[in-house]
Amino acid sequence: MKKLFPLISIFALCGSIAHAQNTNLAYEIVEGLTTEVGQRLAGTEGEAKARAWGAQKLKSLGFSNVHIETYDMPTWVRGAETGEVVTPYNQKLMLTALGNSAATPTQGLSAKVIGFSSLEALKLVPDEVVKGKIVYVTHNMKATQNGSGYGAFGPARFVGPNIAAKKGAAAYLLRSLGTDNKRSPHTGVTRFEDGVLPIPSAALSIPDAENLDRMLKRSKGDLTIHLTLTPKQIGMQQSGNLVAEVQGTDPKAGIIVVAGHLDSWDLGTGAIDDAAGVAIVAAAAKNIMDMGKPKRTIRVIWMGSEEVGGFGSDAYYEAHKNENFVMASESDFGADRVWAFAYKLPESAKALGERLQKGFANMGIVYDRGAANGGADVEKIIENGAAVIDLKQDGTHYFDLHHTPDDTLDKIDPAALQQNVDAWTFMLKEVANAPEDLTPVKK
Amino acid sequence: MKKLFPLISIFALCGSIAHAQNTNLAYEIVEGLTTEVGQRLAGTEGEAKARAWGAQKLKSLGFSNVHIETYDMPTWVRGAETGEVVTPYNQKLMLTALGNSAATPTQGLSAKVIGFSSLEALKLVPDEVVKGKIVYVTHNMKATQNGSGYGAFGPARFVGPNIAAKKGAAAYLLRSLGTDNKRSPHTGVTRFEDGVLPIPSAALSIPDAENLDRMLKRSKGDLTIHLTLTPKQIGMQQSGNLVAEVQGTDPKAGIIVVAGHLDSWDLGTGAIDDAAGVAIVAAAAKNIMDMGKPKRTIRVIWMGSEEVGGFGSDAYYEAHKNENFVMASESDFGADRVWAFAYKLPESAKALGERLQKGFANMGIVYDRGAANGGADVEKIIENGAAVIDLKQDGTHYFDLHHTPDDTLDKIDPAALQQNVDAWTFMLKEVANAPEDLTPVKK
Repeated sequence: MKKLFPLISIFALCGSIAHAQNTNLAYEIVEGLTTEVGQRLAGTEGEAKARAWGAQKLKSLGFSNVHIETYDMPTWVRGAETGEVVTPYNQKLMLTALGNSAATPTQGLSAKVIGFSSLEALKLVPDEVVKGKIVYVTHNMKATQNGSGYGAFGPARFVGPNIAAKKGAAAYLLRSLGTDNKRSPHTGVTRFEDGVLPIPSAALSIPDAENLDRMLKRSKGDLTIHLTLTPKQIGMQQSGNLVAEVQGTDPKAGIIVVAGHLDSWDLGTGAIDDAAGVAIVAAAAKNIMDMGKPKRTIRVIWMGSEEVGGFGSDAYYEAHKNENFVMASESDFGADRVWAFAYKLPESAKALGERLQKGFANMGIVYDRGAANGGADVEKIIENGAAVIDLKQDGTHYFDLHHTPDDTLDKIDPAALQQNVDAWTFMLKEVANAPEDLTPVKK
Repeated sequence: MKKLFPLISIFALCGSIAHAQNTNLAYEIVEGLTTEVGQRLAGTEGEAKARAWGAQKLKSLGFSNVHIETYDMPTWVRGAETGEVVTPYNQKLMLTALGNSAATPTQGLSAKVIGFSSLEALKLVPDEVVKGKIVYVTHNMKATQNGSGYGAFGPARFVGPNIAAKKGAAAYLLRSLGTDNKRSPHTGVTRFEDGVLPIPSAALSIPDAENLDRMLKRSKGDLTIHLTLTPKQIGMQQSGNLVAEVQGTDPKAGIIVVAGHLDSWDLGTGAIDDAAGVAIVAAAAKNIMDMGKPKRTIRVIWMGSEEVGGFGSDAYYEAHKNENFVMASESDFGADRVWAFAYKLPESAKALGERLQKGFANMGIVYDRGAANGGADVEKIIENGAAVIDLKQDGTHYFDLHHTPDDTLDKIDPAALQQNVDAWTFMLKEVANAPEDLTPVKK
């Protein structure tokens, strides 16, 4: 383990507390969750175990009002998944089904492959060109610090299978939405429109996609893949959100929501996505708790089922939309350091924004004047008028690991994780105790 | 693709030829073999296809006397392989069977796990401590430039399963002999003594081994794994060595052997182990061919079945031991640059050694005064008196990939591969044309 970031120096800069506690808590949470629970696919027993584990952990840390709010959600589970090029060469492919993929017959299906250099290229061809074939779509995603490649190239996964299904394709293969060169395919959810019959859909690891590119180039349209995927939709299952609070002294000052998501994809142990996020927000809230009661209540929410469609945040919003949420913030972009921050605060809290800018500058964190958006777990609360602060993590290496078997504890640098906690602690201390009025202007 | 190393500058230094050809040949061979053939486990159809592919390639390049020498060998093939911790936690493990592993029952076996911090620690315990249990051995292998960690920690794979089997263990698990942090387990051969009943034996990926370490620490002796391995020994199968020559002008001056191995492990496509090696020696020999006939014949051998026990080199030596081999050299340590060289030459060829030292110094390659050993494919020829020159590749990252699914084309830096070809070309030109007598002093 590397030397931990000296938290005390941050607080010395902020000038408000004399010493720091809990410098190892975030790592301890990630370590515990990935070791004692592991994968926690939404709607499965793994996710339920994670809620129980988390509730016990948050209670033991002294949080108030620790409870689980359950809801039911449609659940998809992985089955067998194999693929191989059978003509003109013979190569096994490392691939993984996308969430909501249909199954092939148990013995698999064999079909000719037609490759496209982009999703746009697939959209342009007449249906008969792809009918009955396995559609393969590649792309040109590169690593970026802000993760913008995922938005730009993501539709090849998000909607590519639906487009191929509507054109009559037998199955859909994708170059993983990743920036690594490992034989670890990247899963993730895909969505089929109502009335469209889902097709088997999988992502190839990047070395496999590159080998397929070379084989396709040589084969001149005569390349066959045998594909076996046996995932299942298992109907409505229970999921839940885990909630805990640091209670404030002034109930009228409103509630601050800090969130991450407890569910993970099933291939790895969900260390960076998103054990890190739930650990960061909880460890920062615990730091505030240990400083004495803040003015505003801080509500920590470890959301369920973010990966598969945000059923947890939808359920939470529906049940709580009339509460006085004044600010919401989310950590769900790995465990690398916070390099920038953005915010949207009411006019009344201009001075708070200036204090945040000054404090973050002291921590080497850049003020980004662009839009603050929150994230999937808090977006409805923000749309409803709550202020938002984004602590932007360095995502340069995030898509090397995202949704792969390689999302494991060893990928986390404890010092970078602690820098996140330090940044969140500073932010929460300022916002929870701000004398300014944060009451949202309702739309 | 990165810019290729400018071969011409090397030859300018050597002062002997005006221009360079074939600057892309080694990469072209690796690309072809990994794309059109892929994995080529010894004794299987993949290895046979590789021989056919290679024979066609070497003929097309103008080599003389291109032919395959077949032999039969005992063959082991991989089956299903899964493992999971079932108590006190529930975690799937990414693991792979070791070559010569026995199978579990089809439905798998469940047993308590006993962990050892080293092979030495396992050796020390009485048999009854491990009887009926799954033995798990970890180790402390680190990356080294010369690869010496493999020799030091390798016995945990080479002989660990045999030791555990003799003590009555139900199965054997190993932290992969690797230096990476990927979920890619490292396979490799293990050997059971005659009369010892083989047990199921597998390597865990390093993140899985580290997670198992954490789980074992928490479980206080009460951790159960369910393990399923269904590999098979399929009896004697045909393998073969592929041979090609650049014929020399002086049949009495002896034959130079340059080798790599054509077989690979079955998890990846064998790019660094050892498509790179066969490509390097062939591309260098082709460069010599294109300079006009050398004095000595250069015999290129792409050996079969190196990975599983050296049946190919044994068969080759038995059939050819009476030929006049004056020097043997092998490339089988990846595709990173040559950083050092060592040699053992007869006294009569002292001047040749000095020319090699001078030329390699010009190429930034260090003279290593330690022993030159050749390698598994040529060791018997060397033991029989042939001179040997080792071109030592940088192995710092070799054990990140060795024997894993991640041994694929994308891991090769074409510039580093070409630096190998340049170094081998220089060496072969000097040795093949040396006026000195290289005739070995027979033991």
